[in-house]
Amino acid sequence: MTRDEPSIIQPRAVSGFPEWLPEEEAEFQRLLTIIREGFETFGFTQIETPAAELMEVLASKGEINKQIYALYRPAAAEEERETDLALHFDLTVPLARYVAMNFEKLTFPFRRYQIQKVWRGERSQKGRFREFYQCDIDVIGHETLDPLNDAEIPSVIYEIFRRLEIGDFVIRVSNRKIMQGVLADAGVTGETALDVLHVVDRLARIDKETVHRELMDECRLSASLIDSILNIAGIAGRGADVLQKLGALSITNPVFILGMDELKLLVKNLGALGVPDSAIEVDLSITRGLDYYTGTVYETFLRDYTDLGSVCSGGRYDNLASHFTTQRLPGVGISIGLTRLFAYLLEAGVVKPAARTPAKVLVTVMERARLADYFAVATALRRAGIPTEVYLEDKRIKAQVKYADKKGIPLALIAGEDEFSKGVWQVKDMRNGTQTAVPQNDLNASIKILLGV
Amino acid sequence: MTRDEPSIIQPRAVSGFPEWLPEEEAEFQRLLTIIREGFETFGFTQIETPAAELMEVLASKGEINKQIYALYRPAAAEEERETDLALHFDLTVPLARYVAMNFEKLTFPFRRYQIQKVWRGERSQKGRFREFYQCDIDVIGHETLDPLNDAEIPSVIYEIFRRLEIGDFVIRVSNRKIMQGVLADAGVTGETALDVLHVVDRLARIDKETVHRELMDECRLSASLIDSILNIAGIAGRGADVLQKLGALSITNPVFILGMDELKLLVKNLGALGVPDSAIEVDLSITRGLDYYTGTVYETFLRDYTDLGSVCSGGRYDNLASHFTTQRLPGVGISIGLTRLFAYLLEAGVVKPAARTPAKVLVTVMERARLADYFAVATALRRAGIPTEVYLEDKRIKAQVKYADKKGIPLALIAGEDEFSKGVWQVKDMRNGTQTAVPQNDLNASIKILLGV
Repeated sequence: MTRDEPSIIQPRAVSGFPEWLPEEEAEFQRLLTIIREGFETFGFTQIETPAAELMEVLASKGEINKQIYALYRPAAAEEERETDLALHFDLTVPLARYVAMNFEKLTFPFRRYQIQKVWRGERSQKGRFREFYQCDIDVIGHETLDPLNDAEIPSVIYEIFRRLEIGDFVIRVSNRKIMQGVLADAGVTGETALDVLHVVDRLARIDKETVHRELMDECRLSASLIDSILNIAGIAGRGADVLQKLGALSITNPVFILGMDELKLLVKNLGALGVPDSAIEVDLSITRGLDYYTGTVYETFLRDYTDLGSVCSGGRYDNLASHFTTQRLPGVGISIGLTRLFAYLLEAGVVKPAARTPAKVLVTVMERARLADYFAVATALRRAGIPTEVYLEDKRIKAQVKYADKKGIPLALIAGEDEFSKGVWQVKDMRNGTQTAVPQNDLNASIKILLGV
Repeated sequence: MTRDEPSIIQPRAVSGFPEWLPEEEAEFQRLLTIIREGFETFGFTQIETPAAELMEVLASKGEINKQIYALYRPAAAEEERETDLALHFDLTVPLARYVAMNFEKLTFPFRRYQIQKVWRGERSQKGRFREFYQCDIDVIGHETLDPLNDAEIPSVIYEIFRRLEIGDFVIRVSNRKIMQGVLADAGVTGETALDVLHVVDRLARIDKETVHRELMDECRLSASLIDSILNIAGIAGRGADVLQKLGALSITNPVFILGMDELKLLVKNLGALGVPDSAIEVDLSITRGLDYYTGTVYETFLRDYTDLGSVCSGGRYDNLASHFTTQRLPGVGISIGLTRLFAYLLEAGVVKPAARTPAKVLVTVMERARLADYFAVATALRRAGIPTEVYLEDKRIKAQVKYADKKGIPLALIAGEDEFSKGVWQVKDMRNGTQTAVPQNDLNASIKILLGV
């Protein structure tokens, strides 16, 4: 810093690195807790991996993600400036490294959840975040993992979005093996088959004619194969109906049959798993962009906010950690991108800022000579599990009550010499302005009733 | 990656970036939740700031922290590789930036907590972490902040460490104004006074003779002043006793008197705030290294593990954000370095790994033809708030029960055709091996009783 620069630095947030006001953060944390508890309800256990991994771990697939943020130490001694570290850009590579590294110590199937920030050097753009929360679950098997695990995943999604209460949603499900079987039957496999799935995946965003042309020009498929593929991709609806239509195609390719069986197992068990028909749609156009997936795939849409795109996606994969271990680790998982979802819901007014403080009671202080009495009542409330703040600044009672109002604290306690002599406290309910004198001995109980706890 | 490299990359953890096994993480999260709830009990509200700040924000004091990790994008286009970002190395600078930036939108006194990872490029060394959790609270006033806030802080520390149940602890309290007043009386102020406080702070680690010599040689204090200072630094014990000894010194310096008054206020209110005498020690040798502090300072020691050093420290400061705003923002706060504390407690066996899963019930599957029945009972348990896992792999019942045992799931449900025909479930208590047949209708209630929820 040169002498001529001003001594005040303009405090600025960093574009793409969101942060919230306290009342917004409280709401964010409420959603985060619902997701966490939802995961735990299904027996997923938490792990946390460091924000930074070795570059060689993050580049395990042979190339470095273009959006990766690497670390260096600008103020260290010359020879210590460089590091071999970078911030993780998802939670899947760290999971693979973690499972491979701790293989002997984990019990399989390993059901883990992970709620952490990830970082991506995206171009600055509305709705694009460079730092954001991912909420992931995965079930990892050793050698095998029963397809029943694919069937259970929609029930986790359903339970969480039901609890979030952010409106109607639909879980769209497909199985990549179905399309792959059709392609394999026509001799289309490997890279070309993956290319076809990529093009088909774009059906949600571009028109059918363009998809048709791309399948012909880029994937070099025959007109009749394109017709079959677009026909299958057009099948969507209730699980039983979709399965019937698929059966009517009389395709005997074993991969196709396997995909249909997995889908059948999923559809059959959803009811017992608590997922109503209305929340599920089988949609064979969904293939998910990632080559990683090998079977069932999931997307989740809020019916009232479809422009938001999928808010919870994932799928089945054959092998989690082939770059780190020779153990075969098949898995299935989903991810909720909470930061993007929250930012959208907040702007749309679907979720609203909460209170500015967790305090439920403000103990105002009228007689500073009797501080011990005010502190004692606050201590008793805290020990009874009621978040309580004592107003500590030397201000008039009116300013103290106003503070409770501004912070959204529902109850204010007031006592002066008159109340002390009578052994009562004035309980002011900030939500409706009513005020009641409550004997000291009944205070905790009365407050619990007023707070409904 | 060249062709000659092996395709398997040895999965490695990064030195100084700790991560835990699931059963350790569960325990870590338990402690984190106690701290969080403790903070909220006192009406502190959560904020979260991004992991990265602008370099100019982090270097606001004029120099870049030597341990800072900055970000660059190794795989981006040449002109986009550099960034102006670095990871925060504490939560205080981000708080200052946040409060200055959102000044108009916050209600003061602003009581915030922040539980986040911070990063420091430390040399690799046992017990030194490069990534670790800090759990911070601060109360920030606008223009003024009543000294009562200093008095309340020990009650937050006390409540949290009481709930953590990790053994006896003592909160050591002092006030830097006391020593500063004595120095000012002798004409020692500014940088020299701060140097003296730094030397005195080392009394806990080095012998009194060395401190004496440093005060003479480096701070150029007179022999009589050194005697007074070491005399005061030697005063420690119960608050009332310390205050009496200080009073007997008949020092009239106004800064000294102010420090004594603040200490008196603190000592006087601790009882009403629920802090027993046994948990507090006034110790005037504590000055804390940081120049940042201007009054009350705190340190917290576990009596059985004093080699761990202070596990919760902090203090009072005059102005939080002078680099970012002309608003005067006095504050008081503390920080718990949870990662270091947890790693120590885990190694010492004071905290123990918890269960490997949050699941309380494992529904085993004996008859795969009746999957819907097993899923239905799991769904009912989940809806009743009981974390439940269904064993989905196609294994014999013995392997399934063994899985419950390995994961530490307390109850296993078992049902075959016999049970289905009778409408009962076998409930196996894994903790003691007992097994009871429970009618389907009584299942949720019985399980709640067994789990004590």
